Amino acid sequence: MKTIDKINSPDDVKKLSLEEMNILAKDIREGILKRVNDIGGHLGPDLGIVEATIALHYVFNSPKDKFVFDVSHQCYPHKMLTGRKEGFIDEKYSISGYFNPNESEHDNFIIGHTSTSVSLAVGLAKARDVLGQDHNVIALIGDGSLSGGEAFEGLNNAGELKSNFIVIVNDNEMSIAKNYGGLYENLKELRETNGKSQNNFFKTLGFDYIYVEEGNNIEALIQAFKMVKDTNKPIVVHIHTLKGKGYKPAEENKECFHWHLAGFLNEKNQTSNKTETYESITTDFLLDKKAKNEPVVAITAGTPGAVGFYPEFREKMGKNYTDVAISEEHSIAYASALAKGGAKPVLALMSSFIQRTYDQLSQDLALNNSPATILVYWGTISPMDATHLGIFDIPLISNIPNIVYLAPTNKEEYLAMLNWAYNQNEHPVAIRVPFIPLKSTRTADTTDYSKLNKFKMINKGQKVAIIALGNFFDLGEKVLNKLKNELNIEATLINPCFITGLDEEMLNSLKENHNLVITLEDGVLDGGFGEKISRFYSTSSMKVKNYGAKKMFTDRVPLNELYRMFGLEENQIIEDIKELIK
Amino acid sequence: MKTIDKINSPDDVKKLSLEEMNILAKDIREGILKRVNDIGGHLGPDLGIVEATIALHYVFNSPKDKFVFDVSHQCYPHKMLTGRKEGFIDEKYSISGYFNPNESEHDNFIIGHTSTSVSLAVGLAKARDVLGQDHNVIALIGDGSLSGGEAFEGLNNAGELKSNFIVIVNDNEMSIAKNYGGLYENLKELRETNGKSQNNFFKTLGFDYIYVEEGNNIEALIQAFKMVKDTNKPIVVHIHTLKGKGYKPAEENKECFHWHLAGFLNEKNQTSNKTETYESITTDFLLDKKAKNEPVVAITAGTPGAVGFYPEFREKMGKNYTDVAISEEHSIAYASALAKGGAKPVLALMSSFIQRTYDQLSQDLALNNSPATILVYWGTISPMDATHLGIFDIPLISNIPNIVYLAPTNKEEYLAMLNWAYNQNEHPVAIRVPFIPLKSTRTADTTDYSKLNKFKMINKGQKVAIIALGNFFDLGEKVLNKLKNELNIEATLINPCFITGLDEEMLNSLKENHNLVITLEDGVLDGGFGEKISRFYSTSSMKVKNYGAKKMFTDRVPLNELYRMFGLEENQIIEDIKELIK
Repeated sequence: MKTIDKINSPDDVKKLSLEEMNILAKDIREGILKRVNDIGGHLGPDLGIVEATIALHYVFNSPKDKFVFDVSHQCYPHKMLTGRKEGFIDEKYSISGYFNPNESEHDNFIIGHTSTSVSLAVGLAKARDVLGQDHNVIALIGDGSLSGGEAFEGLNNAGELKSNFIVIVNDNEMSIAKNYGGLYENLKELRETNGKSQNNFFKTLGFDYIYVEEGNNIEALIQAFKMVKDTNKPIVVHIHTLKGKGYKPAEENKECFHWHLAGFLNEKNQTSNKTETYESITTDFLLDKKAKNEPVVAITAGTPGAVGFYPEFREKMGKNYTDVAISEEHSIAYASALAKGGAKPVLALMSSFIQRTYDQLSQDLALNNSPATILVYWGTISPMDATHLGIFDIPLISNIPNIVYLAPTNKEEYLAMLNWAYNQNEHPVAIRVPFIPLKSTRTADTTDYSKLNKFKMINKGQKVAIIALGNFFDLGEKVLNKLKNELNIEATLINPCFITGLDEEMLNSLKENHNLVITLEDGVLDGGFGEKISRFYSTSSMKVKNYGAKKMFTDRVPLNELYRMFGLEENQIIEDIKELIK
Repeated sequence: MKTIDKINSPDDVKKLSLEEMNILAKDIREGILKRVNDIGGHLGPDLGIVEATIALHYVFNSPKDKFVFDVSHQCYPHKMLTGRKEGFIDEKYSISGYFNPNESEHDNFIIGHTSTSVSLAVGLAKARDVLGQDHNVIALIGDGSLSGGEAFEGLNNAGELKSNFIVIVNDNEMSIAKNYGGLYENLKELRETNGKSQNNFFKTLGFDYIYVEEGNNIEALIQAFKMVKDTNKPIVVHIHTLKGKGYKPAEENKECFHWHLAGFLNEKNQTSNKTETYESITTDFLLDKKAKNEPVVAITAGTPGAVGFYPEFREKMGKNYTDVAISEEHSIAYASALAKGGAKPVLALMSSFIQRTYDQLSQDLALNNSPATILVYWGTISPMDATHLGIFDIPLISNIPNIVYLAPTNKEEYLAMLNWAYNQNEHPVAIRVPFIPLKSTRTADTTDYSKLNKFKMINKGQKVAIIALGNFFDLGEKVLNKLKNELNIEATLINPCFITGLDEEMLNSLKENHNLVITLEDGVLDGGFGEKISRFYSTSSMKVKNYGAKKMFTDRVPLNELYRMFGLEENQIIEDIKELIK
């Protein structure tokens, strides 16, 4: 019998001896490796936090004491200790990879974005104080997440609490990739002085502070946590852990194993993928500008791997590459100012994380008409966790004045748009990088995108017009063909290219011999592209039907189910059209 | 001849003796007072920064050296020294109260929101380095703005610059109101030790640091600025200034004179306004909850005055009041967690500043279905500066799943909605507080708002239906009456109440005997409420016309001009309707 077999709740952890806890740590690591090897997931952060999680549950009394884990991508050990070990050892993979209060009372929030833990925990602590309760509130935050503005805002406000508040800083010397920023020099200084340096970021914000060098030593951690338990003021426990601990490849290549696809345990030599992708043609484009000594600056906000900015690329770009750390707000202001200052910034963000930047897109970028280029990756309807959906970027970006938001449909179009965005000096330009396999027309796109809001007429037909945006252009082609083959309708197919404005001339011309316009977009309908087409035609007799995602948070729903639920299957669309043109 | 008469550009400042500069400071203060007394504006921040601005232009060479002022509400002295003194002494009030590159090459960005200066300046510095240029980049930021996450993200990233970068921290011991947060204890410690404390926030982020106690002494400032000019690494110059300096009432009542309406110089005793307003009935509501010992928490993010949280209210609320400082992101997470923790948070934000919180609204609040109440003030089409428009909150908030966004139209409806939002435990609820004079129906609203998305049928007519949202309900009534009186049409009038969902039953019922639906909303059309109505009817024969603001940044355009430009005048609407029902 393994030690993990005896653990069904945190109470069972409290019964263990130190020796048993160390065995438990091994069992937990096995579970982490099994799950990630089976279905993919976060590896390094979970392997590194095993001991701290055991110690936390040994010392504190969850759910009375309340934990908030930042991003919660390091919650696998926590889940194994709070009644959900089957999500790791018994292949019950419906257990999610993030905090989820619907699974357990030990998870206090649904969390998936960075830098929110301290902020949320301050709210929990204030609620406790207002209600006259007396439990501990503990935020666990990684060093990487500390660069995010929301974390700082929470830390500053915590300084006002005159009551129990514990922040565990899990310092594994890494963000997703390397850490960047002045703060990280201070963390280094604290590590190197065993926490004794006078220069202490946390103390300047009013926190008491203790340091635990052996952040993977259960005994040392228990001692530290006991010391701060029931504190009556805000305190930081800075623990030094090893990301990926216990699995050599993850210890040695921390970035690669931060999150990993399934199946890595069987791959002796992982070969890098040399297939051409939207990521690779982007980095080629940027390297070419660098080679020509242009003032290009490629920018990521802490997620280089997710946008194809791999180590080799970064090295080649040198000073023309900036990782601003997890700080999406700053990344937009930074890109805007680079453009105003005469440089050529190209900032790559993920759809889900650009949500941090609405005000910066509006004020720092759009209002100033800065000609920066923003690449939006992962914008798509997807089977992702509810915390990482990529369906909201169109309403977010496209309703802000001045920004030109483009939706390419193939390689050549993407490169032409990127080239235009990069070279022009009039507009902030965002490009929704296709989230579909790269498709080449093998013909250079010579469109002049400086003529804004010109849609492309791909097939001129009648009766029905299909306006198929970005990722969904292929779906538009399929509907076109089905209409021809099944209903004998030669429909019109339009690639709008521009998300942020309408080609009124083309739309008006459709009134002559069309009764129905359908719009297809790979994102949420509410506030999106299709609604603007509906508004355009709303005073005419043209019927319009918008296709896209419903306004809801879906959580790990398979793509085919999502499509069916949203009525996006070809057959559903054809049936609708039949009904509408009767 | 006054000294200011000799100043037409920064070059003229450099020719002055110290004595003349001190006289210039007096002239500038006169200009500030004249302008604010004539047209209203920022007073305290400008009076406090006079000497520093003179010293900056004496030492640095703008526009080669680049200044970025945070919020830029303290730019009046800068404007007077950079060719725009007529905006102060000669009543050329078309000169704006914020940075504006369209006015002068000495303003590097359009700026009006807080905590962006360091972030933008880091981008300028990086552009300089990539382009091989060698000027100084100087960010000026107030202590109050340092609590905003974007400022921290910029400061952290600045630590990576190995080149010239100067941050002037203008510490006047005040935000708009009092400062809150652990950081401010550190600034106090630095002031009290003449900058010598080992505990130094800025040093922990990798900055060199110098302190100037006499922040209103031109000589001391010049000495400090000369010392840091052409530095080859990031440095903070922490200057201690007096907000409101030179005008006693502003020195004594810093919050009241941060920004002030015109005409204050002639008012001997300003009497407080006892008229009932949406602000006053809100604070009465909150005080009542407090009196009943309920776990209410009233929250502002640094703008208490703008939402009617006046000093007397704050004092009465005691520990049930929180100013989280300028940290809108945190304010949403904080409110969400308070609600999850069992307290009753009511967070008041301004439409323009809620733009900082999209991701927190989505992830920290909506995804968690936290029953917090968010009051959105100043949501309206207005003649404000382009930086402070209140027209984007509907697309921002209403396209996020789970949030219930309400638009009351009178006092009783507002109180009923507020009461429901406060007491329920199922939904995050935002209320768009009316930005029109308070109107009472003198009849309690007994609507059950837990039945979501039920529109109110106010007048049942035919042919034309008017759906008039929130602030524009009155416009809807006017159109209703005009249709009756001028066209003899008994139209339908609907008060939708809910911005975030459609009453499909009612909308379907309109199809029976209506041909036209018009929607009226006091905000931008793109991504807004009306487009959803257009989408709803887009597959039917119902015509729909949406009224609201165009997607554009308008800058201090008078309201009647805006209404005409957007086609929102009653007569324009009536003419449209005539045409559409022909």
